[in-house]
Amino acid sequence: MAVGEGGVQAAVLIIGDEILSGRTQDTNLRDIAKYFGAHGVDIAEARVVGDIKEEIVSTLNHLRERYAYVVTTGGIGPTHDDITADCVAEAFGVKLYEHPEIIGMMQTRWGGEITPARRRMARVPEGGTLVKNPVNGPPGFQIGNVFTLAGVPQIMRGMLEDVGHRLVGGTVVISKTIRVDGSGEGVIAAPLEAVANAHPALSLGSYPFFGPDGYGSSLVVRGRDQDEVDATLVELEAALRAVGIEKISPVETS
Amino acid sequence: MAVGEGGVQAAVLIIGDEILSGRTQDTNLRDIAKYFGAHGVDIAEARVVGDIKEEIVSTLNHLRERYAYVVTTGGIGPTHDDITADCVAEAFGVKLYEHPEIIGMMQTRWGGEITPARRRMARVPEGGTLVKNPVNGPPGFQIGNVFTLAGVPQIMRGMLEDVGHRLVGGTVVISKTIRVDGSGEGVIAAPLEAVANAHPALSLGSYPFFGPDGYGSSLVVRGRDQDEVDATLVELEAALRAVGIEKISPVETS
Repeated sequence: MAVGEGGVQAAVLIIGDEILSGRTQDTNLRDIAKYFGAHGVDIAEARVVGDIKEEIVSTLNHLRERYAYVVTTGGIGPTHDDITADCVAEAFGVKLYEHPEIIGMMQTRWGGEITPARRRMARVPEGGTLVKNPVNGPPGFQIGNVFTLAGVPQIMRGMLEDVGHRLVGGTVVISKTIRVDGSGEGVIAAPLEAVANAHPALSLGSYPFFGPDGYGSSLVVRGRDQDEVDATLVELEAALRAVGIEKISPVETS
Repeated sequence: MAVGEGGVQAAVLIIGDEILSGRTQDTNLRDIAKYFGAHGVDIAEARVVGDIKEEIVSTLNHLRERYAYVVTTGGIGPTHDDITADCVAEAFGVKLYEHPEIIGMMQTRWGGEITPARRRMARVPEGGTLVKNPVNGPPGFQIGNVFTLAGVPQIMRGMLEDVGHRLVGGTVVISKTIRVDGSGEGVIAAPLEAVANAHPALSLGSYPFFGPDGYGSSLVVRGRDQDEVDATLVELEAALRAVGIEKISPVETS
């Protein structure tokens, strides 16, 4: 759904066999979406691809042409299946080089002895800049409109702190949620749609859940104008009460 | 990474603004990946798109041509932002019709009175078959190689039970994991790569974590031949011990 004018769009490219096999539950998309959203950049699309060079390169090239920003996660460690840096360099048609600042960090941490595997993590595409890793270990990097971050969630979140100040965002999307218990979407749909139709610049969504009391739903109003979002939430609650829905409660969203 | 011959590939298409805004944490990809994996079908790619018709239709048409199966999740409820059925029908170039079996179920549940919103959930593409919803509420559907399932995780998982018997899978991928504590990938990488190179039909992956003891990693051996996977795990453990890594423990994986 459109969320008014003024948006800047980005994509997330999640790299790793472990996500596609179901071994690992991704949480990076959610964290990136919230962080970028707070900076006025909306995630318009996300993709998960395996550790296959051709797939990563072609997907990255597609996304970076289409969106203002792309974030990649995963595949920047020292092992043979960590091929993201190689793929980003290939996508941009540049070479990788060992970044002296990273080599310096490694020498401080591990002394003179740096294994070939660790040296892999010092490789950055020509023209790239570093993205700080405040947790531990080597940094990520930015080249053009692409941010290449770690896959480990704790480290990825730390790296985001060095990404935000580089983003040129649009107007932040404001999101407000109310929760309806004990009524399913079959009852909610008509008043929700009526209010949605009256506010084409907003996105009104219904996210059902199924709990001990049966179906309920979280109703979300999203837009770039705080006053319109607030007023529409009041209007929506009145429309729901008008069809006999009573269990409505506000939801604090982070 | 290749996991030997004999694979059947599928894609997952996750539909919903709420995933891209970070409001909702998707868990369906992981559940589908595990379920399909157990039926010999590997998820090769996943995409998350918003509630935008053109995006959904074009993405679905791309994926269904490329993979043996596609699973969609989300957007099959009764509200105005539930447009998945419309999109699937458009992708296949067929019309939606109200399925008499679903209308019958609704009449049993809600009596004669079926709201227009609920009728939306009775719509199935011409040529489609139903996918049972054992939890509550209306079913999903299959058309061609596409399964259209609910987005609510509990309901989605229930629907999978009526999908498995329709899959023609390949050889199931066997996955075994050992966990290394107190050693980072910089030390693990060399023995891991040596063992990986000796077994081109297997996929060996390293999935680092960062915990109270610093870096560690889960090392995963995946392949379609149980004996080779087992033997390779023994070989890998020996190679790790040979470089001085001692804290190695088996991991039970589901």
